[in-house]
Amino acid sequence: MPGHPLDVVAIGNALVDVLTHENDEFVAEHGLNRGTMTLIDMERAESLYAVMGPGLEMSGGSAGNTATGVASLGGAAGFVGKVFDDQLGAVFAHDIRATGVEFTTKPATSGPPTGRCLIIVTEDAHRTMNTFLGASSRLTPDDIDEAQIARAKVTFLEGYLWDLPEAKDAFRVAARMAHRAGNRVALTLSDPFCVDRHRREWLELIRDEIDIVFANESEVCSLYEVDDVDHGMARLAGDCAIAAVTRSEKGSIIVAGEERVPIAADPVEEVVDTTGAGDLYAAGFLFGLTRGYDLELCGRLASLAAAEVISHVGARPLVTLSDLAAPLLPT
Amino acid sequence: MPGHPLDVVAIGNALVDVLTHENDEFVAEHGLNRGTMTLIDMERAESLYAVMGPGLEMSGGSAGNTATGVASLGGAAGFVGKVFDDQLGAVFAHDIRATGVEFTTKPATSGPPTGRCLIIVTEDAHRTMNTFLGASSRLTPDDIDEAQIARAKVTFLEGYLWDLPEAKDAFRVAARMAHRAGNRVALTLSDPFCVDRHRREWLELIRDEIDIVFANESEVCSLYEVDDVDHGMARLAGDCAIAAVTRSEKGSIIVAGEERVPIAADPVEEVVDTTGAGDLYAAGFLFGLTRGYDLELCGRLASLAAAEVISHVGARPLVTLSDLAAPLLPT
Repeated sequence: MPGHPLDVVAIGNALVDVLTHENDEFVAEHGLNRGTMTLIDMERAESLYAVMGPGLEMSGGSAGNTATGVASLGGAAGFVGKVFDDQLGAVFAHDIRATGVEFTTKPATSGPPTGRCLIIVTEDAHRTMNTFLGASSRLTPDDIDEAQIARAKVTFLEGYLWDLPEAKDAFRVAARMAHRAGNRVALTLSDPFCVDRHRREWLELIRDEIDIVFANESEVCSLYEVDDVDHGMARLAGDCAIAAVTRSEKGSIIVAGEERVPIAADPVEEVVDTTGAGDLYAAGFLFGLTRGYDLELCGRLASLAAAEVISHVGARPLVTLSDLAAPLLPT
Repeated sequence: MPGHPLDVVAIGNALVDVLTHENDEFVAEHGLNRGTMTLIDMERAESLYAVMGPGLEMSGGSAGNTATGVASLGGAAGFVGKVFDDQLGAVFAHDIRATGVEFTTKPATSGPPTGRCLIIVTEDAHRTMNTFLGASSRLTPDDIDEAQIARAKVTFLEGYLWDLPEAKDAFRVAARMAHRAGNRVALTLSDPFCVDRHRREWLELIRDEIDIVFANESEVCSLYEVDDVDHGMARLAGDCAIAAVTRSEKGSIIVAGEERVPIAADPVEEVVDTTGAGDLYAAGFLFGLTRGYDLELCGRLASLAAAEVISHVGARPLVTLSDLAAPLLPT
């Protein structure tokens, strides 16, 4: 496998999701930040887990979910992220490889255990995420393999990585390697609070190093500190070649220079769990882009992948996305 | 909590289920015994896991599922079973306690890791189980707490335990303690192959030590080596006070002396995964029995609990069963 061309290599936190269903009172009572991602330490992870209901464990992590989505669409994907050499690390490695994703990052043998994301799904199908990064915070520039980055048409980075100094370095190193090889670099802003923490550095990074940005409306507004998303999109269009701005059930808008391509959301019979919606949107979009499809078709593939993942519990596709996508693709 | 009366204490293998969806060709290609439970060693567990698709981890184990069902119906339940002091062991302990079940068995600190059951769910919603017992095989008579057994109206034993010499001793010890305290003992035959392996010993055990037997039609036929299930049920009626014989979508028949109480299966919109059907049937039945309900109502509660668990992926209830059961109960 090493040596073959990749469509996308995704770099991010290697996490196992622990999902449970709770009501709004639980979220309020335990002081959780409803609908967002909060970083927690080991102690908090243990105390929160102790009060959570029975869990369901599934491999997750934003960029990991995106990599599996690309693979499920029939693309060649790689993932770079750090687990510990423990049972949850073995689960993560098994699951991502079982979807056909190339995953060769060495597990850590010292330091904290494999990271996990405690996800509370409330009755409205929204998720509140509490992430103990664990071993995933030990990603360093040494884990980035220049030959692998060179093989990938797009290097995809999750914004969450930026919270960690060494992972941030890995992130920068990977972006430079990708450009050196003539490839593109994509970034997902991940979370409005994440944008808030890193606004200045990210604006610079996007101008200098990022070709494709994924963000939702509130992340765009937070990035440029504006109330009007159209204004934010205009600024974003000036800072990167392509941006895809997601708008939940209103679909998304693809921004490229002066061009604005509105994309409808795919209909979903019942929204069960929104975990992974943005990750799979990025998967569909990047799969399309690496196939050379036009922006509208890229957006439609993105909507299709996002719709599949919100129709069930869990942040990775349960069906082969290439089967769902086949009717949309040029023959 | 210790010291309070229990409705049911369930003793069995402490396992984490690893579920994946595969087609029939996968089952054939890897020589799996479709629709049954096969014991596998660590090496086989690793090689099978390596070829399985991405998994979903949830706590399981037959008797553990039954205990959570009793708790979900509003009963007081305990569970006795052995995990290792590792991540999957912590997951098992968290999940069973989170449902309100008393679980105080000390984890093993030497020997094999926490046991797991690799479950292949095929397109017909049936499950093929491959169990690596791991630490759960280390259950010994020392793990049985006479005070706890004495507190429980019913001690429930899973037949799977009988495959292990020390667990078998634990099983016998628990049955005797229960009777010494004037309580009842229930046994589930677990699996037709399990019956086949232990027929002679089990016949003796049922006559001497078991008050309530759970079995499906093929297990009853295997136990008495008969083709006619009515004949088998007549024999069973002579050997134990109460037997509940499950018949999949045809419902069940409760056998008590000359009495035969037919119970309809509860309608299920879509059967998604039959894992746990028998375990939850036993939960509903025992909950009713410990409440002093008549056999028909016990059977209806059993059908209700089984119907809930086969309507979704996973072997434990996803909703609070007491809410579903409320309309059936005397006010």
